[in-house]
Amino acid sequence: MTEERPTPETPHIEDVVEASPQDERVAELIEHTIDVPVLAEAVEQQEAADAADTLESLAEEEAADVLEQMDDQAAAEALAEMQTPLAVGVVQDLVDEDLGYAARLLVAMAPDDAADLLQEMPVRFREQVLAAMPLGNATALRNLIGYDRESAGGLMTTDYLSLRSDMTVSEAVEVIRSASIPEGLQHLMVTSSDGRIEGVVHVRDLLLGGREQRIGELMKATVKAVRPGVDREAVAREFARYDFSMLPVVDLDDRLVGIVTVDDVIDIIRDEQTEDVQKTVGAGAVEAV
Amino acid sequence: MTEERPTPETPHIEDVVEASPQDERVAELIEHTIDVPVLAEAVEQQEAADAADTLESLAEEEAADVLEQMDDQAAAEALAEMQTPLAVGVVQDLVDEDLGYAARLLVAMAPDDAADLLQEMPVRFREQVLAAMPLGNATALRNLIGYDRESAGGLMTTDYLSLRSDMTVSEAVEVIRSASIPEGLQHLMVTSSDGRIEGVVHVRDLLLGGREQRIGELMKATVKAVRPGVDREAVAREFARYDFSMLPVVDLDDRLVGIVTVDDVIDIIRDEQTEDVQKTVGAGAVEAV
Repeated sequence: MTEERPTPETPHIEDVVEASPQDERVAELIEHTIDVPVLAEAVEQQEAADAADTLESLAEEEAADVLEQMDDQAAAEALAEMQTPLAVGVVQDLVDEDLGYAARLLVAMAPDDAADLLQEMPVRFREQVLAAMPLGNATALRNLIGYDRESAGGLMTTDYLSLRSDMTVSEAVEVIRSASIPEGLQHLMVTSSDGRIEGVVHVRDLLLGGREQRIGELMKATVKAVRPGVDREAVAREFARYDFSMLPVVDLDDRLVGIVTVDDVIDIIRDEQTEDVQKTVGAGAVEAV
Repeated sequence: MTEERPTPETPHIEDVVEASPQDERVAELIEHTIDVPVLAEAVEQQEAADAADTLESLAEEEAADVLEQMDDQAAAEALAEMQTPLAVGVVQDLVDEDLGYAARLLVAMAPDDAADLLQEMPVRFREQVLAAMPLGNATALRNLIGYDRESAGGLMTTDYLSLRSDMTVSEAVEVIRSASIPEGLQHLMVTSSDGRIEGVVHVRDLLLGGREQRIGELMKATVKAVRPGVDREAVAREFARYDFSMLPVVDLDDRLVGIVTVDDVIDIIRDEQTEDVQKTVGAGAVEAV
């Protein structure tokens, strides 16, 4: 039987500091064609951050045309990686051209990224696109938009999965299988029926636990968390200090309202860096030259 | 049966931006006592980064005395979080006082952290402590010390777990259970018997897979990786761009030589930030005041 299993894919190492074959293909297409469907198909194969670079290199309406031809998920992820003012321009173009598609893209996006875009959009566009979404998504996004961008609440996403402490591992596995949680999520929150945090459980401990074990036995009941109003740079410092991969955000009743993930924290630290350098330069160095 | 399972721990939310009860206890002890065993026991209860702050507030010999009374693992983690020059001073004290303990601490530490300390130690101390270690650990550390600190090789750790593609999930679970890999590790490398990377598998996919499925069927055969000589700031940029949680480091034969993890990358980005601000200030602003 071992001999008969399908031949696995040939191993392939991709050197991350070099341009990928997908990026080279897109560069070549942009130089030689303006065939939107062909370009859209190629951009779909790029990593989201690289697809965002491609879209940023196009005119706003052209970028909107390419996005419209892309698979929803790939388009949403690329849009989320674009610089905010450019992405906002593209979304506004889409709202005018194909409102339903604009709404679908924002729904397909991580909620924190969608909220960032909506916060930067003129109210007219924002309300149009929110009205075109399923009510549940619109409500969740309206809620996220309500938090100050500079706070933990403005940094968090609502894209988490919570389990109940009386579930068995088998039941939790089914919940995880059916939810499309981001691949990187390794700590799952355990909450009561009224949304209070009861514990946190690591995916690895679910793997090592017995299939009939209860989540309550595998979880840790002491949970580090942060309040929504905390400044996001303070949140970033805690991540750096304690090597968190994620941190739950809880209200004053210890109800889970979102999670902050390490990939967003890296962006904060880099933004902070740019700001600090600019402040320092602005404060004297330029005049001193 | 559900009713008879042991009562779970009471849920407890720890606000990360506030001082923990453990930190308050240590602060009180330092103010009122110099009883080393009592202090050591309290420091053991702190998070590693906080324990490091405590040790940094003590005189070098006092810090060494406290470490000697702490559990090996807690002591190693605290030492790894201390500022390098202070940690080096403490290790040198330990080498003179209790060489075996100094060696045990460095072995208990994450290999990349131990290598950082050894790189900064005078050769006499370094050779003494390496000679007091099990040969396997000493060889791995000598190898890590050989990489430029500013490169991916200098940033990586050898503390990873690799699986074989013909293992079943059940067999992999046993390997994971018996290895004490860091909790945060969610991507496991799949290698051939000669150390070449064949793929990467996510802990979550092991959980969702059947117990008799082969790792080869669950892994992804396209692996993003970096070469050991790449500058560590370039590595940090790739992490920020593509939201990696870890990245394997491979030699020119595609053999796995280590992994870089996101928590170390955050430190690099913060260091880089401090350096840049200092450079900018040094270049003009200070003179302009």
